[in-house]
Amino acid sequence: MRMYDIIAKKRDGGVLTQQEIAFFVQGFTAGAIPDYQASALLMAIYLRGMTAGETAQLTAQMAHSGDTVDLSGIDGVKADKHSTGGVGDKTTLIVAPIAAACGVRMAKMSGRGLGHTGGTLDKLESIPGCGVTLTREAFFRQVNEIGLAVIGQTGNLAPADKKMYALRDVTATVSCVPLIASSIMSKKLASGADCILLDVKTGSGAFMKTLDDSIALAQAMVEIGEHNGRRTAALITDMDTPLGRSIGNSLEVAEAVETLRGAGPADLTQVCLALSTNLLWLAGKGTLEACRAMAEQALQSGAALQKLRQMVAAQGGDAAMIDDPARLPGAAYTCDVCSERDGWIGAADTEAIGIAAVLLGAGRETKESVLDLSAGIRLVKKPGDRVQKGDVLATLYANDAARFAAAREKLCAALTFGDAPPAPQKLVLARVDRDGVTRL
Amino acid sequence: MRMYDIIAKKRDGGVLTQQEIAFFVQGFTAGAIPDYQASALLMAIYLRGMTAGETAQLTAQMAHSGDTVDLSGIDGVKADKHSTGGVGDKTTLIVAPIAAACGVRMAKMSGRGLGHTGGTLDKLESIPGCGVTLTREAFFRQVNEIGLAVIGQTGNLAPADKKMYALRDVTATVSCVPLIASSIMSKKLASGADCILLDVKTGSGAFMKTLDDSIALAQAMVEIGEHNGRRTAALITDMDTPLGRSIGNSLEVAEAVETLRGAGPADLTQVCLALSTNLLWLAGKGTLEACRAMAEQALQSGAALQKLRQMVAAQGGDAAMIDDPARLPGAAYTCDVCSERDGWIGAADTEAIGIAAVLLGAGRETKESVLDLSAGIRLVKKPGDRVQKGDVLATLYANDAARFAAAREKLCAALTFGDAPPAPQKLVLARVDRDGVTRL
Repeated sequence: MRMYDIIAKKRDGGVLTQQEIAFFVQGFTAGAIPDYQASALLMAIYLRGMTAGETAQLTAQMAHSGDTVDLSGIDGVKADKHSTGGVGDKTTLIVAPIAAACGVRMAKMSGRGLGHTGGTLDKLESIPGCGVTLTREAFFRQVNEIGLAVIGQTGNLAPADKKMYALRDVTATVSCVPLIASSIMSKKLASGADCILLDVKTGSGAFMKTLDDSIALAQAMVEIGEHNGRRTAALITDMDTPLGRSIGNSLEVAEAVETLRGAGPADLTQVCLALSTNLLWLAGKGTLEACRAMAEQALQSGAALQKLRQMVAAQGGDAAMIDDPARLPGAAYTCDVCSERDGWIGAADTEAIGIAAVLLGAGRETKESVLDLSAGIRLVKKPGDRVQKGDVLATLYANDAARFAAAREKLCAALTFGDAPPAPQKLVLARVDRDGVTRL
Repeated sequence: MRMYDIIAKKRDGGVLTQQEIAFFVQGFTAGAIPDYQASALLMAIYLRGMTAGETAQLTAQMAHSGDTVDLSGIDGVKADKHSTGGVGDKTTLIVAPIAAACGVRMAKMSGRGLGHTGGTLDKLESIPGCGVTLTREAFFRQVNEIGLAVIGQTGNLAPADKKMYALRDVTATVSCVPLIASSIMSKKLASGADCILLDVKTGSGAFMKTLDDSIALAQAMVEIGEHNGRRTAALITDMDTPLGRSIGNSLEVAEAVETLRGAGPADLTQVCLALSTNLLWLAGKGTLEACRAMAEQALQSGAALQKLRQMVAAQGGDAAMIDDPARLPGAAYTCDVCSERDGWIGAADTEAIGIAAVLLGAGRETKESVLDLSAGIRLVKKPGDRVQKGDVLATLYANDAARFAAAREKLCAALTFGDAPPAPQKLVLARVDRDGVTRL
C-alpha cells in the first residue's frame, strides 16, 4: 500500500477502505508518512469529503493511536459530556453533579480554555486547593465512591489527533465537518465512556455559526459514536449570547453553585436540565420525561449540589467555598460599563464578548498565556433586555486595572441596540440521536 | 501576508493575486514556506483550478526563481521547441536543423529521457564524441555561427519548478493542467527564446491521453507564453502509435538523418514539416503557406541536413556518421519478432512499446539507470499495416541478449490485430495559437 495512491483516490472522490485509513493514521502517527503527504490528503478530504463510514473508521484509528482508558474498574454506566465550546459555558459543573446524583458515573476528562472559549479545568482551579491531576487509581476510586471526578487528560490519548490537528491548524484544513468530528470523537472514544452526550454550540460565539452546520457536525459525531459502540446523542444549543451572566473562571464557579441551588439564570438552568435529561436517557435511566423529572429532582433536592461539594473536597478544594461562593478569590478591581442610550439590547457578537474576557485575563490568547482566575465579566443586561441610558450593562473584573480599557471597548462594540425587543431565541434548537434529527 | 490565508483562499475557490503567488513561489523556493503548506496549496489548486491569469503569474514567478538565460548575445529571432514527450519522438533532430537552415536561431536546451519517453540529449550522445555541455559563451558563439546548438540545461533554471515538481510527484498533484503548463513553461521562459513552439502529444503513448485534455494543456501553455511576451503556438500531434519506425537513441539518430535526406517515414516527415512550418511562422518568416514551402525547400535542398552535420561537428561529434548512419555504433544482438497470425495491426499501446524499449536498455527506469545507446526497436510493421503469419513485425536491438525475452513479451502484448484495417488517424489533430484553437 502506498500513501500516494491513497491521496490520489481521495483526490478523485473515492471512498477509502478501512485498510487505507489505518495505513494513513498509523503511518502518520509513527512518522513514516511525512507531513507533506498528510496535508495533501487532508486538503483532498476537506474538498472531497468523507462518508459516515470513512469518518467512523478514521476516528476509531485515531482513538487507538495511543493509550485508551479502560473504565471497567468503575461500576455502573459511565457517561461523558462534551461541549464544542462557548462563552460562559459552565454546564459541566452543573450537569456532571446532576448526573452523578442520579447514579450515572461521570469519569470525565476535561480541557483548558483557548481563545474566546473557556475550559472546565481552569474553572475548577479557581477554587483554592482544587486539583485536576489524579492517578488512574485515585480517579477510579473517587468515581466509585462519589460518582464523579473531573480531571485533566491522563496518558497519551489519541496522539494521531494531536499531530493531525497541529498540521490542520497551519494548512487551512480545520473547518471540515468529518475532520472536526473525528478530532473530537477520537478523544471521547479513547476516554472510555459508554455514553457520550454532545453539546454542539451554535451562533456568534460558537465554532459553528449556523444551525445547519451545527446539525451536520452533531450528526457526524453521533454516527461516529454509535458506529463505535457508544450510545451517543447531541443537543444543538444557543451560543448567540453568552450562557448565563458570568464569564471568567471563579465567576462561573459561583454561577454554577447558584444554579445548583436553584437560583441561577434561567437560560443556564434550562440548558443544564436539557443536557442532564439526555445524559440520563443515554445511560438508560428511562424515558426522556422520566429523566427530566429525575434531573429536576436532583437539582431541587440539593443532591446535585452535594455531589459538587463532594467532588471539590475529594480533589483537594475548599468545599466551604461551594457553600459560600462569595468566599471565592475575588478580583482586586471592578469596572462598570454603562449604557449610553435607551433601547433594547439586540444581537451580541458573543465571540467578541469572549475576547473581551480574554483581554481581562480570564482566557488564553496562546497556550502559554497565564490566567487571572478571578478576572471576567458579569453581564447585568443581556440580549432581549430593555435598558435606559446610564444603566449598568456589565461589570468587569480584573487584578490589573490597565486591562479595563481594551476590554470595555471590545465589549461595547459587541453589543447592538434597537428600538424594539429582538425576536426571542430558542435555547435548545435541535436534538440528534441515532434515530435522526429533531428540530425543536 | 500569511501562507495560511493563501491556502484558505484557494481552498474556497478564490483567485490568488500576483502578490500572493509571488509570496508563495519565493517563500517556497527559499525554504521559508514548508512542504506541508505547499502541498496543501497544490492539492487545493488541483481541485479548484487556476485562471489563465493566475497560471501565467505562477509561471512567471517560477521562471524568475533562479537564473534566466539572456539570449540577446545571439543575433536574430531565437526560437525554442518543446515536446511533451512520446515514443520515437526524434523531431528536434529534424525540426531544429530545418529552422536553422531557414534563418531562425535555435539556441535550445534539451532534456534526457525518463520512463517510456526519450530525450534529445541521449540521442545526441549516441553519436561518438558529440557533447551536450557547452559554456554559455561557446553556446552563443555556435548559434551565431551555424544557427543552432542543442545542449543540456545550464545554470540553475527555475529551481521553484524543480522543488515543486518533486513535491507534486509524491503528493498526487502532477496531473493538473495549470501545474503541468506552468512547470513546462517556466523552464521555457527562463531559457530566453522569443518564440516557443509546443508539440503536445496525444494518445496512448502520451502523458495526455485524450484530444480534449491535450488541447486544454496547449491552450494553457500558449496563454502563459503570450501573457509573458513570447510568441507561442502549439500543435497537437498523434502519439497513439510511435512516431516513425525507430525507438532507441542511435536508431533514432539514423532515422532522423534518413528523414533529413528525404527518405524518412512519411508520418515523421509530415509531423516535422508541420512543426517546422509553425516554428518559422512564429519567427515571423511569413504566412503558414510560405513557411511550409521554406521548410520543404530546406529539407529537399539538403540545407537542413547540412545544419545537423555542422552542429554535430561543432559539438565534437563524428560528422561522418551523419553522412553514413550505418557507421553509428550498433547493438551486438538483434532479435526478430514475428507475427503469429494474419490480419491488420490495430491499436497499439504506445506507452507499452516505449517500456519495451526501456527493457532493452534504451531508456531509464529511474534517473540513475545507465543507458545502452544502441539498444531499441525498429518497427517493421505499424498500426494500419497488413501482416501475414510469420512476417517480421519488429527487430529488437540490445547489447545484452538476456533483455530480449521481457521486451518481446511487452511488445507483443502492446499490439492488437484485427480482420479489417483500423480507421486512419490524423497526424496533426489541432493547432493552438493566441487567436484560438483550430481542430484539423
